[in-house]
Amino acid sequence: MAYELYYWPGLQGRGEFVRLALEDAGAKYIDVAREKGGMNRMMAMMKGEGEKRPPFAPPFLRNGKLVIAQVANILFYLGPRVGLAPKDENARLWLNALQLTVTDFVKEVHDTHHPIATGLYYEDQKAEARQYASHFLKERVPKYLGYFDGVIEQSGGPYLLGRRISYPDLSLFQLVEGLRYAFPNAAKKFEKKLPRVIEVHDRVAERDGIKAYCASERRIPFNEDGIFRHYPEMDA
Amino acid sequence: MAYELYYWPGLQGRGEFVRLALEDAGAKYIDVAREKGGMNRMMAMMKGEGEKRPPFAPPFLRNGKLVIAQVANILFYLGPRVGLAPKDENARLWLNALQLTVTDFVKEVHDTHHPIATGLYYEDQKAEARQYASHFLKERVPKYLGYFDGVIEQSGGPYLLGRRISYPDLSLFQLVEGLRYAFPNAAKKFEKKLPRVIEVHDRVAERDGIKAYCASERRIPFNEDGIFRHYPEMDA
Repeated sequence: MAYELYYWPGLQGRGEFVRLALEDAGAKYIDVAREKGGMNRMMAMMKGEGEKRPPFAPPFLRNGKLVIAQVANILFYLGPRVGLAPKDENARLWLNALQLTVTDFVKEVHDTHHPIATGLYYEDQKAEARQYASHFLKERVPKYLGYFDGVIEQSGGPYLLGRRISYPDLSLFQLVEGLRYAFPNAAKKFEKKLPRVIEVHDRVAERDGIKAYCASERRIPFNEDGIFRHYPEMDA
Repeated sequence: MAYELYYWPGLQGRGEFVRLALEDAGAKYIDVAREKGGMNRMMAMMKGEGEKRPPFAPPFLRNGKLVIAQVANILFYLGPRVGLAPKDENARLWLNALQLTVTDFVKEVHDTHHPIATGLYYEDQKAEARQYASHFLKERVPKYLGYFDGVIEQSGGPYLLGRRISYPDLSLFQLVEGLRYAFPNAAKKFEKKLPRVIEVHDRVAERDGIKAYCASERRIPFNEDGIFRHYPEMDA
């Protein structure tokens, strides 16, 4: 049976971190909200209709009767099942800590364009967004990505776990892609200090599943509805 | 052997969600950074000295050689070991989704006083903080806590899982305590719409381990270094 992924259609967003794992692994899945009637099905599940355990927000994954919300939680579940994580508990907890650090970073990326309120338009918080983005690029990008670069160094590389690829490596690929889209000028500079993260990105980009996916229509282009948005005024 | 908890001394912060689980369960643990020389030990671990898998940030928990970072990840590990989660995988994934929703909310609580940059003082982002807090109280508190209230309703109550308490219930207790400290006026109003969350809070407050802990010196009082800060100008 195919996995069912529920996520807002029309943007990569947080759902993309799950898509990349499913696509890399060649797992069968349905991107429900992009199918006819899918949005209604997604909204019904969020309202808790017939769900004992309703998810707070997309993305969530359904496998049979099991519904799993939260990106890191979905990947924790999928990882060993699709060959993107070892089965050993200690390694899984370590990967989960890494993925949750990705989650924290993604929230800060989102807040570069929405520092005051998710309920307001970008245009209504533009000045604050510029301030936020300037601190973000100066302090937070080097802190988070520098951490991941150090982890790869400690592991012996080329991946976060060492010789074996795992799902947070796919997320690093997406972070680099997204930051290049949103902040092309800044990225040129900060990438120089992240040789190991960039190597992970380049290796992931060459994987069969990812290559085919990125060339397909299933990969929604980056746009200004997603997490990574290109507003030139924010790119130093 | 006792668990070792590593967290900044002098504030409850994110470490508190772990402390509450350890205390409720009566688990033996050392609050390392509050002991003599503990801060140095914590900083050394974060620098990766002797650590193959260095944590990004506190809190982290050590059990023998295993080091686990990220609150939700620590609680995922501890839950079934200290009797605060079932061992069944599906239930654990569900609790993890709930705890990660707590994590998301806690980040927004933090951002009420730091909307622009963690690296700046509150005083440098006071106007933006007021704006943020006003949206937070109006839109985000009802959204998150209303969700948890609905989950308790669906489960049949009185707890998130139904009749059995689990670690995210302890986190709900902390959210209510913290919001009452930070936003006493607003809390009086929004609590009226959250009868089930408040019942969880009240039940947790009466548990032996939690009662003893809150009366002890181990419970650091809320203060303006933590996640929940009382700035009267932000409390509508």
